Amino acid sequence: MRKYRIVIVGTGRIAAVHARSVHRSPSLELAGFVDTVAASSLPSHWGVPCFPTLGEAAGAVVPDAIVIASPTDTHVSYLALAVDLGLPALCEKPVARDRRSIEVAMDIVSRSGLPVILGFHRRFDPMRREVQNRIAAGGIGKTEHILQLSRDVSLPDRRVSAHQGGIVADMVVHDLDELLWLVGRQPDRVHARLDRNVDAGLVEIGDHDTVSLQLEWNDGPVAHVSATRRAVHGFEQRLEVFGSAGRLVCDDPRISCVRLDSAQGTYLDRRHAGFGERYRDAYQAEIDHLADLLRCGGDPFCSLEDGLNAFDLVERVVDAAQ
Amino acid sequence: MRKYRIVIVGTGRIAAVHARSVHRSPSLELAGFVDTVAASSLPSHWGVPCFPTLGEAAGAVVPDAIVIASPTDTHVSYLALAVDLGLPALCEKPVARDRRSIEVAMDIVSRSGLPVILGFHRRFDPMRREVQNRIAAGGIGKTEHILQLSRDVSLPDRRVSAHQGGIVADMVVHDLDELLWLVGRQPDRVHARLDRNVDAGLVEIGDHDTVSLQLEWNDGPVAHVSATRRAVHGFEQRLEVFGSAGRLVCDDPRISCVRLDSAQGTYLDRRHAGFGERYRDAYQAEIDHLADLLRCGGDPFCSLEDGLNAFDLVERVVDAAQ
Amino acid sequence: MRKYRIVIVGTGRIAAVHARSVHRSPSLELAGFVDTVAASSLPSHWGVPCFPTLGEAAGAVVPDAIVIASPTDTHVSYLALAVDLGLPALCEKPVARDRRSIEVAMDIVSRSGLPVILGFHRRFDPMRREVQNRIAAGGIGKTEHILQLSRDVSLPDRRVSAHQGGIVADMVVHDLDELLWLVGRQPDRVHARLDRNVDAGLVEIGDHDTVSLQLEWNDGPVAHVSATRRAVHGFEQRLEVFGSAGRLVCDDPRISCVRLDSAQGTYLDRRHAGFGERYRDAYQAEIDHLADLLRCGGDPFCSLEDGLNAFDLVERVVDAAQ
Amino acid sequence: MRKYRIVIVGTGRIAAVHARSVHRSPSLELAGFVDTVAASSLPSHWGVPCFPTLGEAAGAVVPDAIVIASPTDTHVSYLALAVDLGLPALCEKPVARDRRSIEVAMDIVSRSGLPVILGFHRRFDPMRREVQNRIAAGGIGKTEHILQLSRDVSLPDRRVSAHQGGIVADMVVHDLDELLWLVGRQPDRVHARLDRNVDAGLVEIGDHDTVSLQLEWNDGPVAHVSATRRAVHGFEQRLEVFGSAGRLVCDDPRISCVRLDSAQGTYLDRRHAGFGERYRDAYQAEIDHLADLLRCGGDPFCSLEDGLNAFDLVERVVDAAQ
Repeated sequence: MRKYRIVIVGTGRIAAVHARSVHRSPSLELAGFVDTVAASSLPSHWGVPCFPTLGEAAGAVVPDAIVIASPTDTHVSYLALAVDLGLPALCEKPVARDRRSIEVAMDIVSRSGLPVILGFHRRFDPMRREVQNRIAAGGIGKTEHILQLSRDVSLPDRRVSAHQGGIVADMVVHDLDELLWLVGRQPDRVHARLDRNVDAGLVEIGDHDTVSLQLEWNDGPVAHVSATRRAVHGFEQRLEVFGSAGRLVCDDPRISCVRLDSAQGTYLDRRHAGFGERYRDAYQAEIDHLADLLRCGGDPFCSLEDGLNAFDLVERVVDAAQ
Repeated sequence: MRKYRIVIVGTGRIAAVHARSVHRSPSLELAGFVDTVAASSLPSHWGVPCFPTLGEAAGAVVPDAIVIASPTDTHVSYLALAVDLGLPALCEKPVARDRRSIEVAMDIVSRSGLPVILGFHRRFDPMRREVQNRIAAGGIGKTEHILQLSRDVSLPDRRVSAHQGGIVADMVVHDLDELLWLVGRQPDRVHARLDRNVDAGLVEIGDHDTVSLQLEWNDGPVAHVSATRRAVHGFEQRLEVFGSAGRLVCDDPRISCVRLDSAQGTYLDRRHAGFGERYRDAYQAEIDHLADLLRCGGDPFCSLEDGLNAFDLVERVVDAAQ
Repeated sequence: MRKYRIVIVGTGRIAAVHARSVHRSPSLELAGFVDTVAASSLPSHWGVPCFPTLGEAAGAVVPDAIVIASPTDTHVSYLALAVDLGLPALCEKPVARDRRSIEVAMDIVSRSGLPVILGFHRRFDPMRREVQNRIAAGGIGKTEHILQLSRDVSLPDRRVSAHQGGIVADMVVHDLDELLWLVGRQPDRVHARLDRNVDAGLVEIGDHDTVSLQLEWNDGPVAHVSATRRAVHGFEQRLEVFGSAGRLVCDDPRISCVRLDSAQGTYLDRRHAGFGERYRDAYQAEIDHLADLLRCGGDPFCSLEDGLNAFDLVERVVDAAQ
Repeated sequence: MRKYRIVIVGTGRIAAVHARSVHRSPSLELAGFVDTVAASSLPSHWGVPCFPTLGEAAGAVVPDAIVIASPTDTHVSYLALAVDLGLPALCEKPVARDRRSIEVAMDIVSRSGLPVILGFHRRFDPMRREVQNRIAAGGIGKTEHILQLSRDVSLPDRRVSAHQGGIVADMVVHDLDELLWLVGRQPDRVHARLDRNVDAGLVEIGDHDTVSLQLEWNDGPVAHVSATRRAVHGFEQRLEVFGSAGRLVCDDPRISCVRLDSAQGTYLDRRHAGFGERYRDAYQAEIDHLADLLRCGGDPFCSLEDGLNAFDLVERVVDAAQ
């Protein structure tokens, strides 16, 4: 079986996740990394070279596709470069920080005809996909209500937050993208409230830590979104979709099915520590999707256009909260 | 042990529920019914007399307290009559259909000093009370988000609906009253959407079958309410309260803990058929509360003032939806 | 509706349970108690008289049936007396402490034609009955394996234990009776082990605190029984029945559906404190069954013959353990 | 990071599982296969050579260790050959079909000082290990009762069964080995019953399809084991360990956390199809354990001696059933 060669742009935390997935794919081969500044130990961990530019990497290891896991501001340039080199790509979200850049990227990619996957990991999660498939197959009739509960474990460092565009663009965007995926179009009305329940000091960087939304579709469902940066009981991302003929519930998977019944009470199996652990299978599915496109062709399951739609909805939510 | 004698005004469905609870209370005795029009078979079922007026009942069986389970429009008159007769009362909700009548009733009752319990059954439910108690005791820190999911099994007959004041006043009022109970004050902002997902014909009587709310308290929580008249999977009323130090979840109790694992899948224990079955313990607790007040004195746990506050919030929700 | 008058023999803990059930039955009336020695406050609690003998009670309050909740050694005499008086009865288990006395009682009752219910409470439990009904209706095909897990909270006082005939006769008899009920005949082989895991001092009264059984039926199922007097996690009585076409699981009901998710873990809803609380509905169903027999006639659901069969199996288990 | 080279002996179903695990290990490299007869397509799938003998493989690809996944009768020879070649090994269970051969293998391996892992997959399962660790750490006090429920989905083909040594040696051996692991020594008494509930025709090959055991340890726990080849509700392997200070329950993990609530009932998340899917993480952990031993040295977590102990207990169970 032929193995397709992959170069990963970036050597940070998310690049490590993709490297692991590439390694585990039977039809892919990790050929190298690109890091323009100071590479981490990731390339040596995997025993592959690291190049200062994508051009040099392309010349040296002749990749079949690239994975863009570099800082957001560089995504569009690497997409343009990939198109120049004729390489399909998997690009981390978000595509860019402004609408114009996303449109530019979409235009370049669309004219090239090359497949470019956008990495909204939740769309690749086997359980979330099962929910979407069942809804699309009519399993719950007409969708009437969607509930999204997203609770992270703790606040990120305020210096990190400052570069992530705020809780809506950084965290709630996953809920918003999933709603667009499940419903298929922008909501007609957006009601939003942002709070600082955890850290009042976030006002200094214009950020919040709690989001409450009611989104409404004409002749369609209403969605309630409740998101917070800090839940003392641990990481949680739950989805319920209620329809005219049934209801789908996607609870959180647990790490272990071991339960302790003691004199102090019953302790349930443990939760995942965060999105990386929770969505490990989803990250693998992203890379497997890339392998599928390389082997069999076809259209990306999640594309730059989805990135644009999510960007628009993020903007509407932020506006509505003011 | 002395038994207090109770007269129930009304002989309909809810009167039957209260009769059963009175019968089961070791310190109460069912003394008779009042029905001005055509009494049901309820009095003969319990082997007690039925009188055409409360005055006659009071003269004949000398009650210690009354339970008002007659049509809503008569509640205030019976409250006034109970005060005249010096009788404590348990009054079914709602107190009345207009704010002025509720104020009149409150004034009469307040000047009499007699205890009058308002029958919002959910406030008497042992599990909901457990949630409220734990929150009040600081068990989850500061409340940040409340989720109310209320799903009835099927639409009531449209002729019945027409006399109930609409889905908000009739059904969602329980969620709204519970929110006022949990938070302790009116929300500062109300965002509401009403839908006709089940029966478009409800437009003829100005009613809806689906309600979606986002209620916001300044320096307090946000509440999401999703209510529908029809859920094919059955009756359901769930509550989640998320706070800075923990989260309380009140799922629906099930009728049976028997589970069948078959080749067709796993069948969970069954749901209650509706609010009557679900809140049987709560209705008993209402009557037990009446018995407690008769024996030991004290203030009603849920009073006419709570009825006024719920009335106000119902009005705000209906207004916000327009 | 006519109310049948009930006299309860005994004024102890189990008599109190039955008094409450009689009170709650719409078609029964608590007419009085019998206590030959020193009555508790139970009669005055319910406001009914207490007589020193059943004969005097029968003359004074003319009961329609009696409930025998006196010490075990007196059960057979009261059954004989009930037959003399022509009164149906509900008799607490066990019928007697020796086989010969049970046979005598069966003979007297059988010749009288009067209905006598034996109070194995588990047979009246709605959930256990649901399991039995589904099996009898073929819902899981042919039964192949039965699992009984019975765990009490803590050891009874050793002086109390000394009069209860040992853990098998007192506690495990309920599992054994249920097995006879589910399978319909005595097992063909009994393998038993008794342990003193909690209190080695039980050797002084010849008792144990832990029972492990493998019971086998030719051309039928195997049953595993694990019973202990002490489980630190609380009261538990679980049943699983595995068949060729499915499996039924009857887990323990919980007191409350409220769940707390905190930084220290997830606390599930609470367990019942013991058999009295767990089987409240079953005790009510026993009394309701008595009311049914009085109103409509018919055969008792659980009879003295069942008491004899359980007695025999207890003996076999005790023998097998030696 | 240095990669250790692995040769897998065998190209069948279990060899495929190990190949996948080797591929996923960052510190191992799949170097080749050995198949003396007719190799499957497995070597070409992974793009590595296949040799007719282990000797040739050792000469050609210079492995650091081998995985023995060939037919049982060849295990001891390959273990001897591995020792000759100085190669550590992971050997599939069972070591051999007779006690003498196992002793020979143990002797050869023990004198060599080379680490040899025995592949009882359940010992490597993260959840089962969690149970064992908590017990060993005193988390539930003294163990008093162990429950093993093992239910496969359907009978294997009778021709396959004929070569597997019967249900006890092939399937229940995993329960028995786990009991030895949890308790630490052979039981003092074994009570066994074997049945043919699914296929009476198994009598022709001297096999059964259902096993019921009560195993007893002096001054230790009692274990109940119920195993069957066919459960219509699907694959299941549950463990409960009850102790003086608590109880551990290891339920089956599910494939998906998605739940459908419909008018026909509630459908829980799905079960695994069989042991391969259920114990995928355990198989990975076996190979990771091999990698750990190669990198850091140390003793195997599960050794040939464990294979001998399990063999002995299998024999005792089979004898006791006669």
